Amino acid sequence: MSDETGFMTMGRAGEVDDIPPIGVGMLGYAFMGKAHANGYKKLSYMAWPPPLMPRLISIAGRDEQAVSAAARRYGFERHVTDWRELVADPEVELFDNGGPNNLHAEPTIAAAEAGKHVICEKPLGRDAAESHEIWQRVEATGVVHMCAFNYRFVPAVRLARQLLEAGDLGEIHHFRGRYLQEWGATDAEVWRFDKSLAGSGAIGDLGTHVIDLARYLVGEIAAVSALTATFRPGREVDDAFESVVAFESGAVGTIEATRFATGRKNAFQWEINGSKGSIAFDMERLNELQVSDGSNGFRTILVSEAYHPFWEWWWPHGHIIGWEHLIVHELHHLLACIAKDRPLGPHGATFEDGYRNALVCDAILESAAEGRRVVIP
Amino acid sequence: MSDETGFMTMGRAGEVDDIPPIGVGMLGYAFMGKAHANGYKKLSYMAWPPPLMPRLISIAGRDEQAVSAAARRYGFERHVTDWRELVADPEVELFDNGGPNNLHAEPTIAAAEAGKHVICEKPLGRDAAESHEIWQRVEATGVVHMCAFNYRFVPAVRLARQLLEAGDLGEIHHFRGRYLQEWGATDAEVWRFDKSLAGSGAIGDLGTHVIDLARYLVGEIAAVSALTATFRPGREVDDAFESVVAFESGAVGTIEATRFATGRKNAFQWEINGSKGSIAFDMERLNELQVSDGSNGFRTILVSEAYHPFWEWWWPHGHIIGWEHLIVHELHHLLACIAKDRPLGPHGATFEDGYRNALVCDAILESAAEGRRVVIP
Amino acid sequence: MSDETGFMTMGRAGEVDDIPPIGVGMLGYAFMGKAHANGYKKLSYMAWPPPLMPRLISIAGRDEQAVSAAARRYGFERHVTDWRELVADPEVELFDNGGPNNLHAEPTIAAAEAGKHVICEKPLGRDAAESHEIWQRVEATGVVHMCAFNYRFVPAVRLARQLLEAGDLGEIHHFRGRYLQEWGATDAEVWRFDKSLAGSGAIGDLGTHVIDLARYLVGEIAAVSALTATFRPGREVDDAFESVVAFESGAVGTIEATRFATGRKNAFQWEINGSKGSIAFDMERLNELQVSDGSNGFRTILVSEAYHPFWEWWWPHGHIIGWEHLIVHELHHLLACIAKDRPLGPHGATFEDGYRNALVCDAILESAAEGRRVVIP
Amino acid sequence: MSDETGFMTMGRAGEVDDIPPIGVGMLGYAFMGKAHANGYKKLSYMAWPPPLMPRLISIAGRDEQAVSAAARRYGFERHVTDWRELVADPEVELFDNGGPNNLHAEPTIAAAEAGKHVICEKPLGRDAAESHEIWQRVEATGVVHMCAFNYRFVPAVRLARQLLEAGDLGEIHHFRGRYLQEWGATDAEVWRFDKSLAGSGAIGDLGTHVIDLARYLVGEIAAVSALTATFRPGREVDDAFESVVAFESGAVGTIEATRFATGRKNAFQWEINGSKGSIAFDMERLNELQVSDGSNGFRTILVSEAYHPFWEWWWPHGHIIGWEHLIVHELHHLLACIAKDRPLGPHGATFEDGYRNALVCDAILESAAEGRRVVIP
Repeated sequence: MSDETGFMTMGRAGEVDDIPPIGVGMLGYAFMGKAHANGYKKLSYMAWPPPLMPRLISIAGRDEQAVSAAARRYGFERHVTDWRELVADPEVELFDNGGPNNLHAEPTIAAAEAGKHVICEKPLGRDAAESHEIWQRVEATGVVHMCAFNYRFVPAVRLARQLLEAGDLGEIHHFRGRYLQEWGATDAEVWRFDKSLAGSGAIGDLGTHVIDLARYLVGEIAAVSALTATFRPGREVDDAFESVVAFESGAVGTIEATRFATGRKNAFQWEINGSKGSIAFDMERLNELQVSDGSNGFRTILVSEAYHPFWEWWWPHGHIIGWEHLIVHELHHLLACIAKDRPLGPHGATFEDGYRNALVCDAILESAAEGRRVVIP
Repeated sequence: MSDETGFMTMGRAGEVDDIPPIGVGMLGYAFMGKAHANGYKKLSYMAWPPPLMPRLISIAGRDEQAVSAAARRYGFERHVTDWRELVADPEVELFDNGGPNNLHAEPTIAAAEAGKHVICEKPLGRDAAESHEIWQRVEATGVVHMCAFNYRFVPAVRLARQLLEAGDLGEIHHFRGRYLQEWGATDAEVWRFDKSLAGSGAIGDLGTHVIDLARYLVGEIAAVSALTATFRPGREVDDAFESVVAFESGAVGTIEATRFATGRKNAFQWEINGSKGSIAFDMERLNELQVSDGSNGFRTILVSEAYHPFWEWWWPHGHIIGWEHLIVHELHHLLACIAKDRPLGPHGATFEDGYRNALVCDAILESAAEGRRVVIP
Repeated sequence: MSDETGFMTMGRAGEVDDIPPIGVGMLGYAFMGKAHANGYKKLSYMAWPPPLMPRLISIAGRDEQAVSAAARRYGFERHVTDWRELVADPEVELFDNGGPNNLHAEPTIAAAEAGKHVICEKPLGRDAAESHEIWQRVEATGVVHMCAFNYRFVPAVRLARQLLEAGDLGEIHHFRGRYLQEWGATDAEVWRFDKSLAGSGAIGDLGTHVIDLARYLVGEIAAVSALTATFRPGREVDDAFESVVAFESGAVGTIEATRFATGRKNAFQWEINGSKGSIAFDMERLNELQVSDGSNGFRTILVSEAYHPFWEWWWPHGHIIGWEHLIVHELHHLLACIAKDRPLGPHGATFEDGYRNALVCDAILESAAEGRRVVIP
Repeated sequence: MSDETGFMTMGRAGEVDDIPPIGVGMLGYAFMGKAHANGYKKLSYMAWPPPLMPRLISIAGRDEQAVSAAARRYGFERHVTDWRELVADPEVELFDNGGPNNLHAEPTIAAAEAGKHVICEKPLGRDAAESHEIWQRVEATGVVHMCAFNYRFVPAVRLARQLLEAGDLGEIHHFRGRYLQEWGATDAEVWRFDKSLAGSGAIGDLGTHVIDLARYLVGEIAAVSALTATFRPGREVDDAFESVVAFESGAVGTIEATRFATGRKNAFQWEINGSKGSIAFDMERLNELQVSDGSNGFRTILVSEAYHPFWEWWWPHGHIIGWEHLIVHELHHLLACIAKDRPLGPHGATFEDGYRNALVCDAILESAAEGRRVVIP
């Protein structure tokens, strides 16, 4: 794996030097806990040798029975019901925070201040101020910090970035991104609908992903004009938002997200148009990138055939990968950077990215509330 | 063809009563002139019997040699170099205005005031004020007036409207429309880049189509927040615009258009999400409508199989139609309404639609200029 | 339009020399009659100037009322109820035979022997012997003869042929062609189910099209192994056939057709694999060709952007054409060859192609009946 | 997970009874070794609780350095260079044979006769005779035996089988299957090109998968007519084959496979047409099934939304899975059947399936060699 891609070269020889271990402590055992546990386990043998060998030390959750079951299922050595025990655990060297948004700030800061590297789910904080506090406090400790914008680790997204960096698309004129899901009509009360826990609705949950790829692929956003919609009476957070964005580079476009797109399961779709070419993507077909080089037609590139650095880990061409493998790539990158003492960026998102992302989210909310274009500080 | 669809029932018997003629005078012989001439010729035998039998009387253009050649090619009985002669021609009963935008107002009003029915290309005027003037002056004469928003006559669009009217999609939450072309990087000086001739750029040319289908399918737009972009230095009109829209119904979405989407030839794409289902469309595959009924998956409906009222004119199922056939449908509808003295709407766009469309365009420009949300009057 | 493509250069100047006329007599007024009448009318102004200006002289059919209505609808100067009158009509210079298969041989031969050029629907005869008789008798008269394999005139098919001729696909290994329709389960008694009228079922109707493109794109078929199926009890002809084919060139593949593919309207699909690239096509998306150049991914080429010789006739890029336009291309080619006294091939199919096609059909039937591989003579 | 699907119900409670272990011995550490090792590791926590908890006891390979590295990487307790040691190892209770085809018979039979359950890669033997010998010898021991036709464990394939069993497609008329890869033009000498090691070429490698799904979805094949092609001079095995098949049920179709389809990476594509509906599939988009219910259009069903029994193991809807997960499903099914002493069929393929598959392969080769239809015994 070449250095240009930000990944370590994989050893191929039969002989492997001793692989140093790293102890992992995890907060949360639901969707993200499962995905991250799977990620640590898989990277330990799929991308051989791993930069560090993860040891699943301890997992924290408030429901003792549930967290105990999760520990057994995923192979954590122990479980705790108070995240402070994770922070205090000397064997935990990496703190993985997959808890709800209101549990991002305090545990993450505490872990960093206890000298542990940290990875925190997105959005980093519930607003830009909280995100800034997390970033500044953690940055001051000197530990490695990652904000889990996992879609940077889709092979097709990396291929897109390669094409953009190589100038294959020329000057960029447009970014159009939308994240469409359909489950918002539910009557279930989940934490994602509670403003004090989630901070925002579709913006923080889905919109942050679109904003992150917009920043990763096109650059910083200069200004937004937006509206939000809450279709369910009485719901505290946005069900959808629509925004027009201007990038610092002069590119313009739209960023949208909704939980009310019937029939769309996980349709994170984006398109970029440049003076020499265009690319388009849909997360529901995450193995494919549509590429126009400005001559005839869009190619449907199966990423296995085009993007070898990631693909070495997996299977013969055309044997497609799944959503979970993005997490494997992401956690591998984190461990590689810790092992080599290398910066996480530009491919891995840091807490600074989490903060800059939150600035855009706040601007969207402000623009929607005030009915005017808002410039990002 | 059933009345519900706004189309005449086609006679099937061998015997056909005398078909009354209608004399057509046309302004313009370029792209739109060719498309409309073809439309009149085709409808005279494809949708048998035609409601009126078009007679191609006269065609006007400033270049004598070119307009003479066009007259011979398309079978007009005569040609003129001054549109006033068309207006004065007693054999012309229908005035078809396919000239550039600055030639919409005066000739169209003059023709109507001379008692001729009128069809005028979109945008109706170069701004809302001019459009309002055209509408009011023509409406006062009592002639039939049509604004040529031909994409209402795509079978897939009609099928979409049927589904929406039947309530199959439930309450509508989102409309997302974009019209992407790529030819804007040209150095050629065409009238579409001249503000005095065109009024606006991508907005008037492409955006009006998106706005029209938004209005036709979802309803009136209440407010917009927008930005425009001119990528070519020195160009007077917008190369692209991006807007966020709120509908009177409570639906929200985006409307965009650009001439700088490399690789996209005629990608007028839109998606509507409702509480019970969703539909999606791309003009580059105009024979297909994507339909989710809220259960598993989107169907790719080949419109020949689903939408019989239009399809009767054409071929066996699966033998697809082309872009030009929308014009055939449109002109047929116009002649049918003239013949039966029936209102053009809701399926045919009138000059009132041209005006209401222009209000949205003006609001987009105003919002872009002032950086605030603009409410449509 | 360049000579390499087998088409005439279109005049562009306003001035056009006198266009010589050609009188057309047509047998049949159903599906093919409508498609061909439309073709003659459209080519007279779309591909300007036409090589010859078609005059619709006379149309023949047994039902006086129906043929009289068709004459009026399509603009034929007169109608007759006995095809012999067409043959005897001195104003008829081109005889267009769109009648059922049992009416191909006698009228076509008679017309040719009366000195008229002839175009006959496919299959040429009901078997190879009848096809051979037609070919030999007509060839002896010296008139121009075309067998109406219209799918050679799909722009995407021409683009495919260009790529193949240019060697872009390298050595050809595979042709896989299938023509899938769904209407075979009907209880209606149509002439296509009557062996004495049709000769065969899916083979003659749909299979001949696949065989023709196999020959046009890949070359002569050397041997076949096949089976046929008749799903409806009591039906005289095949509902479907499946065959394995070996080409003289060494390529191998399959040719299939069925009227029992529920959900498939007009799915004539084929794929060609060569040592350097591959191409794939589906008639339900006839404006698109899928092209792999052996590097990453298949391009979806919208033919408007790639294939200019045909496209000049039509609209701006991305404004797609329909099925009927293939007939316009085909009849234009026929008139151009008559006007210039040029050979019809390789792009236009002659009666020799009709005969060679029938040899393959007969071999398929023989192989199916005898359970062994059959070598084409 | 319901019993109808052949899968165990997954426990959901936090409390899990003791999970009995099963010791696994594996022959081979290349592509299939990696895929199966990954499968055992993943099923131990993804489908919780696993029916048996796999213990990776020992792995065998001739290259001591390589097999030692594989053992370390995948976590086998030990490694050996002679498969007989696996057979003799009392801790090995399940023998997983992923070796080349010439190493299927002897080790598999020996393992079974030593009382170990066995799973063997496809094709079972190098021809029907060898396959029959393996089946009979292993069947006689009473152990559980699985032939690794993993594509039965694609969720879309299971969904297809559900639709077929429910009669949703009506009477089946057609099966059309093809497995297209492109790597055959390589000059590399791999065991797959050596007749003594592989038995056959594209037939045994790819064709067996198509035959297996044909049998699983449509039923037994009664007769074949075929040809084979070897494009590379001097190569001992087939590079491609083409065959026409008749099923016992009266359905007809084609089965094809090639290693010379430039641009196709892993395109295992099939379509089934029935009197009430049709389904179509492409392994390069393995999360999707195309379904026509005989009314308008094919649905693109994302299997996550439709097929819950498998999906419970994975992620929220629309978060797609990859190729490797088929192996997880397959091995889970094997362990569940061993644990519950239940028959492997109909969803799991047994050695009898391996043998019946080989009968079809032999018939294809015989038909190709003799140029006649061959009836399957």
